Amino acid sequence: MAPDELAELMQQLPEWQILAVNQVMQLERVFIFRNFRLALDFTNRVGNLAEQEDHHPAIVTEWGKVTVRWWTHAIAGLHRNDLICAAKTDALLAD
Amino acid sequence: MAPDELAELMQQLPEWQILAVNQVMQLERVFIFRNFRLALDFTNRVGNLAEQEDHHPAIVTEWGKVTVRWWTHAIAGLHRNDLICAAKTDALLAD
Repeated sequence: MAPDELAELMQQLPEWQILAVNQVMQLERVFIFRNFRLALDFTNRVGNLAEQEDHHPAIVTEWGKVTVRWWTHAIAGLHRNDLICAAKTDALLAD
Repeated sequence: MAPDELAELMQQLPEWQILAVNQVMQLERVFIFRNFRLALDFTNRVGNLAEQEDHHPAIVTEWGKVTVRWWTHAIAGLHRNDLICAAKTDALLAD
């Protein structure tokens, strides 16, 4: 994905940040909840999305907080599909 | 918890490691599974344990892998209860 295409797509994902984890670019967003149970419920919704997409993020579940990180193992970085999955993760909040 | 008590209790938890995350001591174990669904199932079991104990770890769910980290926020480190919760997490594998 060209840098300018990435920049343009990221404008649709204002809550997501690009970070480098062990030199692998990943797309990360932190979601805040009122308690642990609501956080775990969201983790399950993201997990179901991952299974539907056959693409699997890292999901960190903590008290009142879920951190989701999408990236593509095969290219050790970001693919267009990661940005699409990030947008679908945002949409889960509205369900 | 005195260092020698910690060392003694850690002998009961051979799969767990102590690590410092932002200078906070945490107890971590990585659990390996055959696929994402089994990993997510285990995350839910650890989550249910956390709710029962009213003590909440960080749980990182990935494809085929769950990383669990216990620590005590109030003391920014390890309490005896964290080691007990680690042992209870191990016991979930046998369920």
